[in-house]
Amino acid sequence: MVEKRTPVPVKEAIERVMENIGKGEVEEVSIHNSYGRRLAETITAAHPVPPFDRSPYDGFAIRSVDSTGASREQPVTFQVVEEIGAGFVSEKDLEPFQAVRIMTGAKIPEQCDAVVMLELAQEDHDGTYPLMTIKREFEKNQNISFEGEDTKAGSELVPAGTWIDPGVTALLATFGYATVKVAKRPVVGVFATGTELLDVSDELEPGKIRNSNAYMMIAQLQRAGAEPVYYGKLKDELEPCYEAVRQAAKETDMVITTGGVSVGDYDLLPDVYERLGAEVFFNKVAMRPGSVTTVASWGGTLLFGLSGNPSACYMGFELFVRPVIQAMMHSERPHHTMVKAELAADFSKPNPFTRFVRGSCRAEGDRLYAEPGGFNKSSAVTSLAGANACIVLPGGSRGYQQGDVVDVMLLEDNEGQKEPLS
Amino acid sequence: MVEKRTPVPVKEAIERVMENIGKGEVEEVSIHNSYGRRLAETITAAHPVPPFDRSPYDGFAIRSVDSTGASREQPVTFQVVEEIGAGFVSEKDLEPFQAVRIMTGAKIPEQCDAVVMLELAQEDHDGTYPLMTIKREFEKNQNISFEGEDTKAGSELVPAGTWIDPGVTALLATFGYATVKVAKRPVVGVFATGTELLDVSDELEPGKIRNSNAYMMIAQLQRAGAEPVYYGKLKDELEPCYEAVRQAAKETDMVITTGGVSVGDYDLLPDVYERLGAEVFFNKVAMRPGSVTTVASWGGTLLFGLSGNPSACYMGFELFVRPVIQAMMHSERPHHTMVKAELAADFSKPNPFTRFVRGSCRAEGDRLYAEPGGFNKSSAVTSLAGANACIVLPGGSRGYQQGDVVDVMLLEDNEGQKEPLS
Repeated sequence: MVEKRTPVPVKEAIERVMENIGKGEVEEVSIHNSYGRRLAETITAAHPVPPFDRSPYDGFAIRSVDSTGASREQPVTFQVVEEIGAGFVSEKDLEPFQAVRIMTGAKIPEQCDAVVMLELAQEDHDGTYPLMTIKREFEKNQNISFEGEDTKAGSELVPAGTWIDPGVTALLATFGYATVKVAKRPVVGVFATGTELLDVSDELEPGKIRNSNAYMMIAQLQRAGAEPVYYGKLKDELEPCYEAVRQAAKETDMVITTGGVSVGDYDLLPDVYERLGAEVFFNKVAMRPGSVTTVASWGGTLLFGLSGNPSACYMGFELFVRPVIQAMMHSERPHHTMVKAELAADFSKPNPFTRFVRGSCRAEGDRLYAEPGGFNKSSAVTSLAGANACIVLPGGSRGYQQGDVVDVMLLEDNEGQKEPLS
Repeated sequence: MVEKRTPVPVKEAIERVMENIGKGEVEEVSIHNSYGRRLAETITAAHPVPPFDRSPYDGFAIRSVDSTGASREQPVTFQVVEEIGAGFVSEKDLEPFQAVRIMTGAKIPEQCDAVVMLELAQEDHDGTYPLMTIKREFEKNQNISFEGEDTKAGSELVPAGTWIDPGVTALLATFGYATVKVAKRPVVGVFATGTELLDVSDELEPGKIRNSNAYMMIAQLQRAGAEPVYYGKLKDELEPCYEAVRQAAKETDMVITTGGVSVGDYDLLPDVYERLGAEVFFNKVAMRPGSVTTVASWGGTLLFGLSGNPSACYMGFELFVRPVIQAMMHSERPHHTMVKAELAADFSKPNPFTRFVRGSCRAEGDRLYAEPGGFNKSSAVTSLAGANACIVLPGGSRGYQQGDVVDVMLLEDNEGQKEPLS
């Protein structure tokens, strides 16, 4: 008998999952290991930047008043009484027409209020002191990088939840974060189910195929910033499936299975969920591929039952699992970024359900184009390679033509958005 | 005395560097650790996909000829003589009006040439065998996924140099790559120079700032896929600088220093290069910021002397260092992807040289917009956080207005392009 399942709209399905999660734990890591993590604290400027008035050039710090009237006809000469490199501080009390040789980044001496660029000064020597002559006036505050002109002390610089890129790392270093609080990587268990599955190192056998979904999802988990734990393959036998999923659910933050989630006699995940007493949020989604995607919760662990077909598994992961990982890692924008792009090829297959077509999104000129990837059947594992986007084609249409503007989900983007889909 | 340097156009500078590198070494890694590496071998289909004719649905495999004439009025009934799950192979010799219960992914039995979807069959039992009745005809080849329809054996699937994303990982698994040849990560030494630099864990001192560039570049190296080795800070003293750079150059594939590369008295890198007898490709580039960028080669190791100012250092890395890393890792498209985008804010500063402004590039509708990041001075470390793009503004202009279409370099894209810039 075919069990009747009610398909849930994709967006609603995603929201049902997102309502059932909380923020993950926090850990402190060295700045050296912070790249690619998500901040679990807001980064604040502990001091102004620059932290003191400093010279943006190699040159001479002067009192601008001394340059008054300087011109090609009436040059003004200064005694250079001191030289300070970056990292050193002037110790002289300057008298009129005295200057300090100063290097880029060095602190402007107390009595100085302008910097003469090296190229604009003529150097000489009077026997006691080096001399420096200028042929133009300098204004008060000319060529000075002022304390706090980039950032005031106390400014909030980067909110918690932000993905740590090289620029954020630079901020961490600037403000003395030798260690930083980041979100712990959620630990995610992965199973592939199906008696037909061979290991990657096995020779092919009649009727069997190699398990590719588990390896694909391990990479998807790595891309998402999670920590995958591969539990191996499960045969289509209820007892060992049940035991394995139960054990994994105790050891991880979530468990993903691929395959065995449909209504066939060999689809055992529904029975596993029932036996566990898991709360099933939905077991059918109004989308293609991946309509049999099931998400459940048991003892605080989310159980994702993704389809066994590669494209459906891939999309199910990006739609349902990835935003959970991002939200657990404190992201306020856990869903993939959506853009609009022109379809670069016809997609003529009519379909009653919303279709998620993996492909690539590229800019040409200042416009975006999206192209479905390869031979686009749900079994087409090759179409997944190089996919950086998922084209979303709403159902109820007789197909889409080249040039139609469509919604596209960017898969390699770390910024994300607050709400799912468009 | 100010040394005269001749500025080299940016593109030419990049090309001078790229002419002086070769492909890096190859290593074999487990598929589990392959995500984010670059392929050092072309991946070929070792067998067709699907590897055999198989059922895309749960249902019944039949000989289509037996369904001839089936209709609502004249249903046709089959004996179900066998049941095969995915991974099993039929062993029966079918007689007319016999069918095989078949699961998704299972191999189509020899004598069958169509699959009846479960939903279209009415099930019953005759005491000996289960029965299955259909009310419509099925055509030869209906509902069969054919051997090789996705991929023929021997097809080249992914070229060497490709970045391994989750889809590529799936291909590796499908075709039995338990291990895969990937490019070794280039080992890159990092120094920060400048007596003004404090460690990230130090308290601020008058006139000093914390070293942020080294940590930023470590993250940039990680983003680029290289292996950073942090050699620490160098004071502005020639002898220890020389010794440290010399030693690091022997231990790594390339050495990056930040700071000390200008023409000031405390800029020691030019002297270090001279004393090493390094071949200096250029020491001035017609760009802002970062005009003092220097690249040299010594004993087969590239030496990158990047500016000490954070923005210049960041851009120098992305323009000159990153493509070298990608090319060493066998990428045929080592340069950052360029797109065109509408400027989302005025950038009114006139400038004789090509300017590289970090910022963000976002899609709105199906158009791209680029916005300069934060307060855009070369000292502005905060403008680097969240930057995913670099806006390229050719020199010789009096500034750029909101709405102008400009060239933009995407910093987070793994696809890349063959030639540098636009």
